[in-house]
Amino acid sequence: MSFSEFRPLNDNSLVEYIRSVPSLFSKLGNKLDNLTIKEVGDGNLNFVYIVVGSAGSLVVKQAPPYVRSVGESWPMTKERAYFEAASLKEHGRWCPDHVPEVYHFDPTMSVIGMRYLEPPHIILRKGLVAGIEYPLLSEHMSEYMANTLFHTSLLYHSTTDHKRAVAEYCGNVGICRLTEQVVFSDPYKVSQYNRWTSPFLDHDAEALREDNALKIEVAELKSKFCERAQALIHGDLHTSSIMVTRESTQVIDSEFAFYGPMGYDVGAFLGNLILAYFAQDGHANASNDRRKYKEWILKTIEETWNLFQKKFIGLWDKNKDGSGEAYLAAIYNNPELHKLIQTKYMEDLLNDTLGFGAAKMIRRIVGVAHVEDFESIADVAKRANCERRALHLAKLLIKERTAFKSISQVVSAIQSTDPSSKVGR
Amino acid sequence: MSFSEFRPLNDNSLVEYIRSVPSLFSKLGNKLDNLTIKEVGDGNLNFVYIVVGSAGSLVVKQAPPYVRSVGESWPMTKERAYFEAASLKEHGRWCPDHVPEVYHFDPTMSVIGMRYLEPPHIILRKGLVAGIEYPLLSEHMSEYMANTLFHTSLLYHSTTDHKRAVAEYCGNVGICRLTEQVVFSDPYKVSQYNRWTSPFLDHDAEALREDNALKIEVAELKSKFCERAQALIHGDLHTSSIMVTRESTQVIDSEFAFYGPMGYDVGAFLGNLILAYFAQDGHANASNDRRKYKEWILKTIEETWNLFQKKFIGLWDKNKDGSGEAYLAAIYNNPELHKLIQTKYMEDLLNDTLGFGAAKMIRRIVGVAHVEDFESIADVAKRANCERRALHLAKLLIKERTAFKSISQVVSAIQSTDPSSKVGR
Repeated sequence: MSFSEFRPLNDNSLVEYIRSVPSLFSKLGNKLDNLTIKEVGDGNLNFVYIVVGSAGSLVVKQAPPYVRSVGESWPMTKERAYFEAASLKEHGRWCPDHVPEVYHFDPTMSVIGMRYLEPPHIILRKGLVAGIEYPLLSEHMSEYMANTLFHTSLLYHSTTDHKRAVAEYCGNVGICRLTEQVVFSDPYKVSQYNRWTSPFLDHDAEALREDNALKIEVAELKSKFCERAQALIHGDLHTSSIMVTRESTQVIDSEFAFYGPMGYDVGAFLGNLILAYFAQDGHANASNDRRKYKEWILKTIEETWNLFQKKFIGLWDKNKDGSGEAYLAAIYNNPELHKLIQTKYMEDLLNDTLGFGAAKMIRRIVGVAHVEDFESIADVAKRANCERRALHLAKLLIKERTAFKSISQVVSAIQSTDPSSKVGR
Repeated sequence: MSFSEFRPLNDNSLVEYIRSVPSLFSKLGNKLDNLTIKEVGDGNLNFVYIVVGSAGSLVVKQAPPYVRSVGESWPMTKERAYFEAASLKEHGRWCPDHVPEVYHFDPTMSVIGMRYLEPPHIILRKGLVAGIEYPLLSEHMSEYMANTLFHTSLLYHSTTDHKRAVAEYCGNVGICRLTEQVVFSDPYKVSQYNRWTSPFLDHDAEALREDNALKIEVAELKSKFCERAQALIHGDLHTSSIMVTRESTQVIDSEFAFYGPMGYDVGAFLGNLILAYFAQDGHANASNDRRKYKEWILKTIEETWNLFQKKFIGLWDKNKDGSGEAYLAAIYNNPELHKLIQTKYMEDLLNDTLGFGAAKMIRRIVGVAHVEDFESIADVAKRANCERRALHLAKLLIKERTAFKSISQVVSAIQSTDPSSKVGR
């Protein structure tokens, strides 16, 4: 069997493929007996095979030249696999504890071989639906975001290194277009792909399309997404791109990576935690009112930002005399000015985070791709209520994002839009 | 003689070179008799030869691998010639009336052959020093800027076209670094290259280096310059990059071109007109107090912006259902919203223009490269007074740039910092 041109893998050809690639074959101890192969790709784009043998395991991910969840009618560049492998390696270099190791990349077959995140790792979103607390999540995610974003920005890069990397990732344009469409465009217009909890949210979806003040802000966020090459971002950092146990946090699925605004990553993570928060009332039952869990989510949101800010500024302080060209030491090295600059930088980043995070929330409620947090609420009226509250908060966050000066103000805003929370206090 | 590897041209080898290149030779009518060759490069970077024969003429420009005005001790990528040729062609495509035709580009020799702008074309800056009015300047420059900036932005480009072009021009990083250094860094720190009218401006130069509020704003402008790929900008659009007669306006010297913020171009042009304004008191004499000329400069500043805005919005209206992906018609096509979006866009662009324009003013007074507007004022005390007033206005424009809502407010601010103008009113 030849793999000299692209072909979709199946269980049989996958085994042949692994046998033909030493860096994969060796991960199975060069043995193919008693293999179990499971296709587990539940994202929108790719096929993902877990391969477990008697002497080792690995994951093989293949990017077909279309959007898997839609089918061949929505073509999508298979070169995204290159950008996923490249960004996993780059992010892994700066945060090896929270990015799985890449064993192999094959541009012809659009295949990545990487570490299998063994049980009890599960997708974070499923844990959030189940009401499981992850005591290290804020610590780990702040560590991941601070390290990957800082080290790929002009705070650390020379301009030369930065422009070279920006140019390379411009090649991932197909996938950037997908984001532009599903996050910044479709939710604000009539689109065949949009859906929402109907008829309950019909009016809300229509109101979005007619909210001029909101659409002006969304346009500004979209421009920033398209034009601002601030750092190598993951590009899709929601809670299904993270696998967790109580002790481990691993970020996967970075095929959306490109040089964009940092706030898009931080916002994706926090925005999806906020969605999880608003979904909890739909998961409450007689034995568990989820009130305590909601408090944990809020605490995680607040801690994630505060730790992120602390770690990011720590990296900045540590590297302030380094190769980064944004703030030359000879100009900005007086302590008072250095502090002023950092404060302004983090305020701007918080504003971006809220804007992008809220845009990601909206698109999960009225756009093409929904989230299990809400979808798993069987009572549709109850689900619609949860979604509507999330939608209202998201609109507020986008429109008023520059008014928020700290994450605690954001947490207060979340609490104040949540009627059950008011009652509880 | 072989030109298969880079060698600096001289009068003799230039003739051989032209003979070897049909697209150049033909411009001289395939005749090399009675040639006159004049090296006229008075910029900072390149060698420029005017070649006039009995049957035609042309200009040959060669980029040596260093900064000409400094020497071989300051190396500079000779690939800038590629970006100059490419951007002249791209800008010429959108505004052929104001960009000279490119006949030939040779990457090995870093040579561009292009139209000779025959007399009475002169460098605009020399005309401004001489006090010559150009009645069509605002019309022509607004036409040039509106067309080149609009058509290379996401208002006209698809994301795919935009990212491809952005990636290409990331290669011009050497020259972007030069701008970063001389515009955004050196003026705000002690640098061997800095100079100013000493001792008169010693205190002013020191005050700049200690102005924290200013340096915070300059850092923000620098980040925008490095990160925001808004349009294919000329990158060095001061009044020595423009050749003029009363009837003709031609933009040259675009080797600084890259995808950056539009306001950097518009600001370079307007900022240099403001410098010309402040220099006029130094050129005044008994026979000409230059008061009328100063009024003409202010009128030109105001008209340029207003015409630019009108033409830019005109192009936007004309193309609002086109391929541009920033504001999809299906979302933004209601007339009220369309107008709101445009107003916001132009306000943001004015703010960028003022910030970048003022940064360009400052660097011409305390940085490495000065301008003939001031340098030609022989009385150094008088020169320093002109420069100081320009410097004060520039600091105001940077710090308060978001407060300006129209160009007429800017013109008022210029007038109010000019004591002679107050007396005159």
